[in-house]
Amino acid sequence: MINDLPNLTNPVCAVPHSHNDYIVMGHGSGGGMTHNLIQKVFAPHFTNSSLDANNDFGIVENTGKNRLAISTDAHIVSPLFFPGGDIGRLAVCGTVNDVSMSGAEVIGLTASFIIEEGFPIKDLERIAISMSIAAKEAGVKIVSGDTKVVERGKADGVFISTSGIGYIPEGTDIGGANAKPGDAVIISGTVGDHGMAVLTARGDLGLETQIRSDVAPLNGLIHSLLLEIPDVHVLRDPTRGGLATTLNEIATQSEVNITINEASIPLNPEVSSTCELLGFDPLYVANEGKLILILPDTMAEKALRILKNHQYGREAVKIGMVLPDPQKRVLLRTRIGSNRILDVMTGEMLPRIC
Amino acid sequence: MINDLPNLTNPVCAVPHSHNDYIVMGHGSGGGMTHNLIQKVFAPHFTNSSLDANNDFGIVENTGKNRLAISTDAHIVSPLFFPGGDIGRLAVCGTVNDVSMSGAEVIGLTASFIIEEGFPIKDLERIAISMSIAAKEAGVKIVSGDTKVVERGKADGVFISTSGIGYIPEGTDIGGANAKPGDAVIISGTVGDHGMAVLTARGDLGLETQIRSDVAPLNGLIHSLLLEIPDVHVLRDPTRGGLATTLNEIATQSEVNITINEASIPLNPEVSSTCELLGFDPLYVANEGKLILILPDTMAEKALRILKNHQYGREAVKIGMVLPDPQKRVLLRTRIGSNRILDVMTGEMLPRIC
Repeated sequence: MINDLPNLTNPVCAVPHSHNDYIVMGHGSGGGMTHNLIQKVFAPHFTNSSLDANNDFGIVENTGKNRLAISTDAHIVSPLFFPGGDIGRLAVCGTVNDVSMSGAEVIGLTASFIIEEGFPIKDLERIAISMSIAAKEAGVKIVSGDTKVVERGKADGVFISTSGIGYIPEGTDIGGANAKPGDAVIISGTVGDHGMAVLTARGDLGLETQIRSDVAPLNGLIHSLLLEIPDVHVLRDPTRGGLATTLNEIATQSEVNITINEASIPLNPEVSSTCELLGFDPLYVANEGKLILILPDTMAEKALRILKNHQYGREAVKIGMVLPDPQKRVLLRTRIGSNRILDVMTGEMLPRIC
Repeated sequence: MINDLPNLTNPVCAVPHSHNDYIVMGHGSGGGMTHNLIQKVFAPHFTNSSLDANNDFGIVENTGKNRLAISTDAHIVSPLFFPGGDIGRLAVCGTVNDVSMSGAEVIGLTASFIIEEGFPIKDLERIAISMSIAAKEAGVKIVSGDTKVVERGKADGVFISTSGIGYIPEGTDIGGANAKPGDAVIISGTVGDHGMAVLTARGDLGLETQIRSDVAPLNGLIHSLLLEIPDVHVLRDPTRGGLATTLNEIATQSEVNITINEASIPLNPEVSSTCELLGFDPLYVANEGKLILILPDTMAEKALRILKNHQYGREAVKIGMVLPDPQKRVLLRTRIGSNRILDVMTGEMLPRIC
């Protein structure tokens, strides 16, 4: 239906048209353009306290019985299979993680498939098996599903949308708006692995690396943490837009500044060198098995011990602090000792990474 | 990624390949081929009591607090806008209806968007407004969302996956396996309107009709019904595959025969004549604002009164009975007085109808 539109991927043809008129790849970046699109097109019509809280999960009241966290993600990663994972593992882990970041125990997942005509059924089965393995690892069940097929050339292999639901234990109050001055900022491990694994798996860069995606379900890790430290303020997984964009979201929601120390941020050396080679900043590259943890600084040492005890938190480290200044900025103390503002990602750096 | 595959839409090229190797449009029909795909590819890996119950919703236990119904649907309708509705209204109503068919009160929806690069933002906003209106009508909120963008030619305008969650009141036990011999079978109104509205909106048939989709949220209707008649056995909306396929699903789940009377099935005259012209059987054409109600025959009159009092049930009528025979068949008493078996739809009659 949109064949008669200008070719926006061609910069010459794109000139007469504004980004305000047509969707461009940057609207799916998870960064500034996505935020603006949501604020302009969706927020005015869908406004409610749950959505307006700007977390990756919504909260619904279950008729006074308890609070439920609910989250959804569409997965469009390309290629479908990459070192360390595939779209199936991603679809399960992405949604398990988003629900878990509310402090909820996940109780069920749904999965809907949009499949392109001509897609090999053996690949679909490989994806189903991968989803099954990830769901078992996370201890969750896929309780409802849907399968749709579109004509060849109207999709790209397979897209998978997953939704998840969990119940939030009484007294738990975790969310992006809860960071307090004096809190410690912890990252559960190396950053940028997922984005770089998918990018190099595309093959069109002619790069061969050993980088594997970190895609993993983090609900077990979070469960262990909350069991011993109920007073967690923020949990969030730095997916699209990476660590820098996610910290900016938190700074905005909590109306604080956050300062992080570049030298302390854990990096897989191959991710670091590949980013340098390609001109990417790993702080903006997506992760799918990492979390940002913000909690009272007095609890930081204990939290690090718990994280390091878990297979998905071995390289956890404190990377910064929440500051009392209310400018909603993220400040990076660089390796050479200067300070700079880390802004949100505006457009699209790595399309179709999740 | 599948450019090197044979062109399955071309019957000549398709010959050397089996339907078992590659996805074809029929796998998305909602009929027999979809069933077989799910049984072969998904069921072995995702098996659990909720999925295996083969309802359009799953049920999860909420730690002894109450039972939750959860459902998901991917919406790929083409064209995006059609008489009586659009993909936005469809995405909200489809999921509200699937959750409601469990007898649950819907407490939240999620929506994930996969948008093709170049899609007009004004159309996206039109869809968002339509979703907002449908959600308000249904009295539900969209509590979490996701926005992804794919390159031009890798999707078709916009796809929307919605998931819904509801709580099932204590004592409520409604599902496809609960039809009992002696039960009455009621349909809430005319059949085939949605499918025919979308088909004729495509324009490639050169037909101009006044047919409007029936797409509507049915949770209000169901609420009124269950308030006065708690003893409902089955509720289901006959979407893809139409009345005939849906009744077959129920007959299979409940291990009964169902007989329906062709002359009693309400039909919009224009749907009837358009189906006749094009060679479609309206009993296999999708509905998006109708429900099948199965309950003790003694309650049928009361149920019809309640349905007819509601804007979405004015043309409700009893169309048949559940029989004690356990062959899991649907029998049609035709207008000329003969009986024939109504089978499930096997392949794809009307692709991308929802």
